Amino acid sequence: MTNVTTTDPRTAITTETGIGVTSDEQVAAITAAAANAFREMRARPREWRAGLLRALADCLEERRAELVLTAQSETGLAEQRLGGELTRTVFQLRLFAEVVLDGGYLEAIIDHAGNTPMGPGPDVRRMLVPIGPIAVFGSSNFPFAFSVPGGDTASALAAGNPVIVKAHGSHPLTSRAVFDAMLDAARACGAPHGMLGIVYGQRAGATLVADAHVAAVGFTGSLSTGRVLLDIIERRERPIPFFGELSSLNPLIVTVGAVDARADAIADGLYTSFTGSAGQLCTKPGIAFLPPNADRLLATLVGRATEAPAQPLLNERIFRAFGEIRQRLVADGRARVLVEPRAGANGFAVTPGILEVDAADVTGAVAEEAFGPLIVIARYNSLDEVRSSIKAIPHSLTATVHSQPEEAADVIPLVEDLQELVGRVVFDGFPTGVRVSWAQHHGGPWPATNTAHTSVGVTAIRRFLRPLAWQDAPEWALPIELSESHAGVPRRVDGILTLATTD
Amino acid sequence: MTNVTTTDPRTAITTETGIGVTSDEQVAAITAAAANAFREMRARPREWRAGLLRALADCLEERRAELVLTAQSETGLAEQRLGGELTRTVFQLRLFAEVVLDGGYLEAIIDHAGNTPMGPGPDVRRMLVPIGPIAVFGSSNFPFAFSVPGGDTASALAAGNPVIVKAHGSHPLTSRAVFDAMLDAARACGAPHGMLGIVYGQRAGATLVADAHVAAVGFTGSLSTGRVLLDIIERRERPIPFFGELSSLNPLIVTVGAVDARADAIADGLYTSFTGSAGQLCTKPGIAFLPPNADRLLATLVGRATEAPAQPLLNERIFRAFGEIRQRLVADGRARVLVEPRAGANGFAVTPGILEVDAADVTGAVAEEAFGPLIVIARYNSLDEVRSSIKAIPHSLTATVHSQPEEAADVIPLVEDLQELVGRVVFDGFPTGVRVSWAQHHGGPWPATNTAHTSVGVTAIRRFLRPLAWQDAPEWALPIELSESHAGVPRRVDGILTLATTD
Repeated sequence: MTNVTTTDPRTAITTETGIGVTSDEQVAAITAAAANAFREMRARPREWRAGLLRALADCLEERRAELVLTAQSETGLAEQRLGGELTRTVFQLRLFAEVVLDGGYLEAIIDHAGNTPMGPGPDVRRMLVPIGPIAVFGSSNFPFAFSVPGGDTASALAAGNPVIVKAHGSHPLTSRAVFDAMLDAARACGAPHGMLGIVYGQRAGATLVADAHVAAVGFTGSLSTGRVLLDIIERRERPIPFFGELSSLNPLIVTVGAVDARADAIADGLYTSFTGSAGQLCTKPGIAFLPPNADRLLATLVGRATEAPAQPLLNERIFRAFGEIRQRLVADGRARVLVEPRAGANGFAVTPGILEVDAADVTGAVAEEAFGPLIVIARYNSLDEVRSSIKAIPHSLTATVHSQPEEAADVIPLVEDLQELVGRVVFDGFPTGVRVSWAQHHGGPWPATNTAHTSVGVTAIRRFLRPLAWQDAPEWALPIELSESHAGVPRRVDGILTLATTD
Repeated sequence: MTNVTTTDPRTAITTETGIGVTSDEQVAAITAAAANAFREMRARPREWRAGLLRALADCLEERRAELVLTAQSETGLAEQRLGGELTRTVFQLRLFAEVVLDGGYLEAIIDHAGNTPMGPGPDVRRMLVPIGPIAVFGSSNFPFAFSVPGGDTASALAAGNPVIVKAHGSHPLTSRAVFDAMLDAARACGAPHGMLGIVYGQRAGATLVADAHVAAVGFTGSLSTGRVLLDIIERRERPIPFFGELSSLNPLIVTVGAVDARADAIADGLYTSFTGSAGQLCTKPGIAFLPPNADRLLATLVGRATEAPAQPLLNERIFRAFGEIRQRLVADGRARVLVEPRAGANGFAVTPGILEVDAADVTGAVAEEAFGPLIVIARYNSLDEVRSSIKAIPHSLTATVHSQPEEAADVIPLVEDLQELVGRVVFDGFPTGVRVSWAQHHGGPWPATNTAHTSVGVTAIRRFLRPLAWQDAPEWALPIELSESHAGVPRRVDGILTLATTD
């Protein structure tokens, strides 16, 4: 049996992990156990799942120091950044515990039997139910928040589904440490055997997606890997939903008025946003449109990038791709290099890069996502020029506008255009640092994501549920939340929305 | 230019319609106009759309006699059946007007700025927004309720999208008459040019699905045609959602106790359910599991089927396929013919057929959907045998159980199994006659439908919407429903669900 290796991106030194690559037979055993666990989970009340989610949060908090240290050695991300990510991950699990208890996510609806213009209508009751074992593909850039214990896992478990994680090859030790902690906590809660599973290795991931027991896939990663997994799904006898968060350029536009009012603050925020986590965030602003009066703002940005030390990228593949994309972006001669990114002395480190292009020259080629600390500055003369240029930009997770209130009349048409292209519009701020909350939407038109769903925030739970209706069902056949007298969840009854009564 | 023909299934006589097949250039012009209309529609308030939907309902009601007569000549369906369908279609449009005014479908959520465990969080607001022009493929079996003015059209318009219908080749004159009526009503409401479009011909349908302006497809039809359209979508530069209601066998199980208690009522209901509309309903029970004591029930069913007159099927393709599937179902010798369906004297008419098979012999081959008045009776000895047999049945829209309260302990595991296989479980009733209401779910795991959405009932609107989030947006950039003081729709504010205040 082959073992998985791990590489420290700060040094490029690769070591054995002792973790075996998961074989096809092992994948089959894991998914079969998950299918059994799913049946058991259906019998557990929501209160049990809320307790489980809180116990998972607690176990991560308890092992914080060890987990952050392991993740540092495998991602090269700073301790503070990883600590913040773990806090977010813990918060997310606890938030989903609240969501489960609230019960609004069930979308419970009751139509009593009654006369209709078409004659007597039966009693119909509907709510959302879990769908089965979920395959979750961990991402390279968030070893906690979008990996083993991340948003996909939290929302899939909250919905009542078992989870099988494909550990990302960049951080197997972190994945195992987190998984072991979660498994201990789950067992202590009396979770059914097989509710949590993990597989290692690329082939095991493909086998997992093809497995008949798997009901859906949550994925955060590249468009190219996403396409490979989608191809596997299309060859399945029974297709399953694939929820992919795939790619995003995240255009940001600064108006003349905003530059006049707060050039320094914008330069500061923009620099932090495109270089934070070494530019390896899906919401990193990859292209910023600056007006004619932004020379000083740009000079500040260039100055900071020039002086910046090298930061390690997550792995060798990203390190190589970063250099290649930088080459492609300037290949046709339209983009000028303002700050050339330089490789650091050790490991996969690079310094930030800034390219400049005329807004009129923005093409699909210039608008390729570069995963790493690189930004393309598009210089424009009018907002109409921006509106025309952004048509060349792939649909994204976010778009950001910095403007002044007195410019609203000119900005409104731009914002209307941007709303068609993205899933979140940010005003006078920065797209990175995605708030985990009820209203968050982290998704966008293709190719940002491939479905109209979010992978961050409370409504992410909707991905792992399906509606089910009961017609003229006796009380014994109904879920408790649809029984006549239940008042613990919001329900729409005969067309009227009613709140849960808490006592 | 070629013209479309129409065939009266009662006589098999084909006539010219004078309606031209829609050319590729015409399709392009129609979708471009729809894209323009979409931008105009975004500026209209929900109240305007509610008025539009009511006006569409009124215009159909006004032309009822003419529409029903035309549909009779193209579908061979009875006047009463078509009248009921038109009533349902009108009701559906009015129900969606209520839904639009209620505003709960917007799923409005507001998270105010505030401190979080990860630091200060921005203000985030989210709601669902329309997605753009929707292509609606009319079905053969519902010339009103699942065609030009059907549930897909009503829900897509309610969501705020333009609609382009692909008229079904079986009823072009009905499609045109309905479309003309709707267009008059829409114009009287001041609807933007291009909000409603229609195309004729198979090629025009394919061109429509490939068109870059089209944002989603609603489809009710065969699995094979659904697959063809899905292939077109996969070749698009930007994939779009395809909402297909594709195929369904709808198993029905009768227990020993139910036979003892009400054999005659079940025989009567089952006969009506599998022969109504000449068995051409997507929720027709295609297989019924009967216990050992059901000989008299079955004899009643056989008697009624033997005496029944021939009813016309919708078109020649369905007529031919019906005979072929009947052949395939008995080809391996396991199924016995209890009542042989016979072709009628004129047109595409057939009489009902009944086949019988031992439950242990139920295979995928026996469980093929036969569109028409045919039912397979599976004889079983124990509910465990039923639970084993239904694994061979494709996932369906519905499953039905007739039982007695004292049998609950035995029936519960069966119902639990059925819940995994279908989108609606019916108790002591029949799956046909789908109630159009808030709680209805008309969908099911693949291949019943290809998404976790319904095509009947209020939540069908969710298909044609996507979430959009605004971060730290000024009031001028927010939709009215997300502005701070708005109280006209239900909203979740800082995690707390609040009702609309009506005054």
